[in-house]
Amino acid sequence: MESARGGAPVDKAVDFANYFCTYSYLYHQKDMLSDRVRMDAYHSAVFKNKRHFQGKTVLDVGTGSGILAIWSAQAGAKKVYAVEATNMARHARSLASANGVSHIVEVIEGSIEDVSIPEKVDVIISEWMGYFLVRESMFDSVIYARDRWLKPSGLMYPSHARMWFAPIKTKLVEQKNQEYQKSLADWSYFAQELNEAYGVDMSTLTMPYHEEQKKYYLQTSLWSNLYPGQVIGDPVVVKEIDCSNATLQDIAAVKSRFSFTLSGSDRLCGFAGWFDVHFRGNASNPADKEVELTTSPSDTDTTHWGQQVFLLQPPLVIEDGDVVQGSIEITRSKDNHRLMDVKITHELRSSGEQFYPATVCNFFIE
Amino acid sequence: MESARGGAPVDKAVDFANYFCTYSYLYHQKDMLSDRVRMDAYHSAVFKNKRHFQGKTVLDVGTGSGILAIWSAQAGAKKVYAVEATNMARHARSLASANGVSHIVEVIEGSIEDVSIPEKVDVIISEWMGYFLVRESMFDSVIYARDRWLKPSGLMYPSHARMWFAPIKTKLVEQKNQEYQKSLADWSYFAQELNEAYGVDMSTLTMPYHEEQKKYYLQTSLWSNLYPGQVIGDPVVVKEIDCSNATLQDIAAVKSRFSFTLSGSDRLCGFAGWFDVHFRGNASNPADKEVELTTSPSDTDTTHWGQQVFLLQPPLVIEDGDVVQGSIEITRSKDNHRLMDVKITHELRSSGEQFYPATVCNFFIE
Ligand SMILES: Nc1ncnc2c1ncn2[C@@H]1O[C@H](CSCC[C@H](N)C(=O)O)[C@@H](O)[C@H]1O
Ligand SMILES: Nc1ncnc2c1ncn2[C@@H]1O[C@H](CSCC[C@H](N)C(=O)O)[C@@H](O)[C@H]1O
Repeated sequence: MESARGGAPVDKAVDFANYFCTYSYLYHQKDMLSDRVRMDAYHSAVFKNKRHFQGKTVLDVGTGSGILAIWSAQAGAKKVYAVEATNMARHARSLASANGVSHIVEVIEGSIEDVSIPEKVDVIISEWMGYFLVRESMFDSVIYARDRWLKPSGLMYPSHARMWFAPIKTKLVEQKNQEYQKSLADWSYFAQELNEAYGVDMSTLTMPYHEEQKKYYLQTSLWSNLYPGQVIGDPVVVKEIDCSNATLQDIAAVKSRFSFTLSGSDRLCGFAGWFDVHFRGNASNPADKEVELTTSPSDTDTTHWGQQVFLLQPPLVIEDGDVVQGSIEITRSKDNHRLMDVKITHELRSSGEQFYPATVCNFFIE
Repeated sequence: MESARGGAPVDKAVDFANYFCTYSYLYHQKDMLSDRVRMDAYHSAVFKNKRHFQGKTVLDVGTGSGILAIWSAQAGAKKVYAVEATNMARHARSLASANGVSHIVEVIEGSIEDVSIPEKVDVIISEWMGYFLVRESMFDSVIYARDRWLKPSGLMYPSHARMWFAPIKTKLVEQKNQEYQKSLADWSYFAQELNEAYGVDMSTLTMPYHEEQKKYYLQTSLWSNLYPGQVIGDPVVVKEIDCSNATLQDIAAVKSRFSFTLSGSDRLCGFAGWFDVHFRGNASNPADKEVELTTSPSDTDTTHWGQQVFLLQPPLVIEDGDVVQGSIEITRSKDNHRLMDVKITHELRSSGEQFYPATVCNFFIE
């Protein structure tokens, strides 16, 4: 056990088994490299702001395949330190070499928290964002890198990040409820069979089983690429991060109130969370061209992040103009600091006859 | 890191993240409890040999939901120690209580390697078998329990285990090859796109990608419930284990030669591995009624274990009476002692025109 970061104790070997190991597959890196929205944003950010890279030293936190480090070199960086925790590092090294930038890109295999960089850098570039921004808690490592290795006036790529939250309608609400109901019916059949065939009464485990299944089917947030039409109220920002000075304290928990005026006489099926990041440079050295990467619901520009959906069971019948207000609180799971517990409190103020009291729902980003 | 057992060093927290955690879900215990072949065998073993349990002390290694401990109590045991590593232990405790045997069944939460039992026992019962018997390496823990807690003349339930191996035909051989080929085509398209859109030449990663995909699609053994008709030569035993005296040394690796006379003029698509176990008591105290649990290919009595399939790519054209001979060697993966590396060497002696030289294929039981 090493000391706590952002609340939860971290066993490095366990963290590797649970988290890093997926990144050691080219298959997984390819998924990220195939996300055009993501790739276009980082590519534009670097190549439309070459001035930030030319003749500069750069640190790529979590270089993966090495793509951002190679682009930084191609944009004119003098030196790029590309740090990667998994053995994907050796592929990044050969990719840099095959692309003629091995004299600029120095790949270092290890956790950013453990390795030593020979000098402080002008720019930190990193693609650290997880589902709903915060899943994976990788920004912790970026903060660590910034405080340890970035020059005082250095630049963060991206420079800003925001978490968005909105009310939605989705058929997932029926689908998941049906799956849940089916699993309860399965159990009841199973328990009866077991009792008849083997003389053991399982009924004492029925409630625990229901709870386990409820957590799985109803309380775990879902990945989805929603259409804009599924968003039934103006999205709100629940968190803004200035990457140049956010602290671990700032990001360890998110707490925000919301109030949505709902449109359409339909149903409120739940909420969705997503993020955007911006590449703006900093006040003393702004970007020549600001770039945005957004993962919001879109008909055309979908990403591998999609949105995280939190379902309300049952959905609420609404009328146009109804107001739903409440709060969202995101904290880290106490068992795994890279996963999140989400508490959503909501209350519907209806113009019509419907009345719903204030309700608290607990969710898990797994 | 604790000291090595059976070759590989074991980090307990990592082992928990990789292995034990699945057993802490009722969902997973239910899967095992729904396997009628498995349940019938253990149920018969206990209730048709009540004499072995009446007035005796029993240790259930890895009690899970507590089922075997409860049966042991119902069959007349005086005392049952039910040890379970995960927090499934609390469900086992409440199940024992709800079934009126809490005065007999004492559930102890912890690894069998860590807990202390108040006395030596007359019987050890355990359901420790993984895919192809050895996956999960849980028999290590049963050996530990036996050497530490079983009385000299005590009984093992089950008492014997065997690993079976046979030549097979299966359509999986085309399916997996197609999936593999498709993944290579995807890569080639992806690499070209990436180069055109973002100016990075990925070709140096093509070979590593192919290798990664080959391991995934072609070299990882597959779970399947084969029909008896898919077995095209008499199965052979590649390992026999006497649970009463097998040592860690005996089970850490399996090495055996085989020779199959093939039937039918068709194709040799690969091999399948499965197991059976027997409940026979021991020489001085044999079972009143011997019971067998087999996971062999069957039209009717399938199990959740199924068989493990090792594919030959491409399959070999054969004629009736051809002989395939060679060897199988199973060792533990050096990264994870609960997973296996399998090396199969084979050579076809054909009566017809086909000629295939001796070939070595490496597989992974993941
Ligand atoms: N603390 C840490 N130290 C080093 N690498 C880390 C890290 N935390 C996460 N990573 C690595 O960061 C990568 C994030 S995915 C992004 C990969 C690449 N920069 C790209 O944009 O395509 C993964 O490869 C992961 O293994
Ligand atoms: N070393 C060890 N100590 C204690 N429990 C162990 C163990 N190794 C495996 N187990 C437990 O053994 C169980 C094997 S599955 C079998 C469960 C139950 N006996 C049944 O027959 O239905 C799992 O619940 C697993 O968590």
